[in-house]
Amino acid sequence: MPDARLDVLAIGNAIVDVIASADDDFLAREGLAKGSMRLVDAAEAARLYGRMAPGRETSGGSAANTVAGIAALGLRAGFIGQVAIDQLGEVFAHDIRALGVEFATAPLGDGLATARCLILVTSDAQRTMNTFLGASQYLPAAALDQRQIEDAAILYLEGYLWDPEEPRAAMERAIAIARGAGRQVAFTLSDSFCVDRHRGDFRALIDGGRIDILFANEAEIISLTQAADLAGALAAVEGKLPLLVVTRSEHGALAIRGSERAEVAAEPARVIDTTGAGDLFAAGFLTGHARTRPLAESLRMGAIAAAEVISHYGARPEADLEALIAAKLG
Amino acid sequence: MPDARLDVLAIGNAIVDVIASADDDFLAREGLAKGSMRLVDAAEAARLYGRMAPGRETSGGSAANTVAGIAALGLRAGFIGQVAIDQLGEVFAHDIRALGVEFATAPLGDGLATARCLILVTSDAQRTMNTFLGASQYLPAAALDQRQIEDAAILYLEGYLWDPEEPRAAMERAIAIARGAGRQVAFTLSDSFCVDRHRGDFRALIDGGRIDILFANEAEIISLTQAADLAGALAAVEGKLPLLVVTRSEHGALAIRGSERAEVAAEPARVIDTTGAGDLFAAGFLTGHARTRPLAESLRMGAIAAAEVISHYGARPEADLEALIAAKLG
Repeated sequence: MPDARLDVLAIGNAIVDVIASADDDFLAREGLAKGSMRLVDAAEAARLYGRMAPGRETSGGSAANTVAGIAALGLRAGFIGQVAIDQLGEVFAHDIRALGVEFATAPLGDGLATARCLILVTSDAQRTMNTFLGASQYLPAAALDQRQIEDAAILYLEGYLWDPEEPRAAMERAIAIARGAGRQVAFTLSDSFCVDRHRGDFRALIDGGRIDILFANEAEIISLTQAADLAGALAAVEGKLPLLVVTRSEHGALAIRGSERAEVAAEPARVIDTTGAGDLFAAGFLTGHARTRPLAESLRMGAIAAAEVISHYGARPEADLEALIAAKLG
Repeated sequence: MPDARLDVLAIGNAIVDVIASADDDFLAREGLAKGSMRLVDAAEAARLYGRMAPGRETSGGSAANTVAGIAALGLRAGFIGQVAIDQLGEVFAHDIRALGVEFATAPLGDGLATARCLILVTSDAQRTMNTFLGASQYLPAAALDQRQIEDAAILYLEGYLWDPEEPRAAMERAIAIARGAGRQVAFTLSDSFCVDRHRGDFRALIDGGRIDILFANEAEIISLTQAADLAGALAAVEGKLPLLVVTRSEHGALAIRGSERAEVAAEPARVIDTTGAGDLFAAGFLTGHARTRPLAESLRMGAIAAAEVISHYGARPEADLEALIAAKLG
């Protein structure tokens, strides 16, 4: 297997986040389940936006946030995702390239709009996401560059991509290319409602041995396995995943690799906005993993990166993550 | 004179800010004067954006920031400014309306883009602004609603509007309408480079008795009067302005109303990004003024509002300004 040109190549929804404050009453009136992600169409996006408080716009997208963090940590990262030819598409492309992430997916015209996620942040720092996929749902398998996937040591995919049809097909093809080239495939379950929608597909990927590294939070792994609790969920996937990483919010995180198991406590943080916590945990962990650091150290890198991103609004790191981790690991 | 329907109506550039971190070397390489605002064309905006770090987008515009603060403080505010029919125009309109500000200026088509300001924030919290005016420079006098201006107790204008030709003519007309209706006209000098460009016009406005309230920082009032120092500058405009407010960054602010003079110290703050400091000072001060509070209290309200906005990225308040001021004033 030739040396990899990229450490991590991610495929995900290319989204600009619109973050606004909201209170619990607002979520209740709108019938929104706090902490979840739901898909909305253009009309609902416009309606909800009209009722939201003033926003701040920053690039987002789950897997895109992860490669943004990976690039900030000094690894070579790439991203594949679909934007439209519009101002938010320019914002997304600028922000990810400015971090040094390789991003070459051609934007789509035809009157499509770049995806945006209306994120309502409550005073308890929980985020409730309303995603208008726009152009992102039309990522075609033809947008994949086979050579680029073969040249990346780790292919990282988000479960959210299973929602729209075209990207789902593109993902299946990307997994086949990566596995054919002997590369590792990492996958995040994204959201427990997303797991509900695609449990069969996700289980088939795992049972078929097509996932090397799985990222999930507690609710997602329980939803996937339909186990009664975390212990039951872990037992259900035991032996099917070379590497499993489960994040547990303020309870920290754990990783299981064969017979090896490691745990880490959550990093202390003044929590402002939890958007991107899981994405940046994955960034820190994968960076440690790519550098073949011990399992516990990779978990700690994930916890430190997650703590940084939840200490401010927005799902991309603002501090110098590399310096932060170097200082904390000593 | 009939009761006013609006407390403050502002006319200004309708701008979305794109805020990114930069270091002094970057400013030096780009030949940018730290702390200033310069106008750039579409090509230069695109070139500079391509070199900037990842950004966060929030609604801005000097006078727009001021009415955003005034609305947040519970007064009835309106705004007139020109956006284009595009995503950033929607962002601007949404954000200002979500605060309860009356904003009815119809967007312009014809392939124009909404104004954006590329703001480089250095680690000393100074902001260096590069403004692409886009649609904003085409605000026509025809966009003014005479009745709306007559119905506002205070008309608030930014000096920046003197740069482009059409808004300058619109401003002249707005001042004439407001004065004809017996309303107060407030004006901010905006930026010392802006004063350099329009010193003659600004002096003529003041000498002609067409400005009731002038906002300036130390550099701007010195540039306007070409005095040797602040004392000389104050002496030069003495008697020409019913009310003069001068902000002095970390040295606080002062106000002169006839024979009355008041001063206030700067409010302590952990300074992250000084963008919007003057705008929010004006918001706090004008709110006190509109409520006929003592001069010193209005200054203090300005200082508290300014301290809030410099404690985070972005030029619009994030905290509950009204509660903050109530708590601080006791």
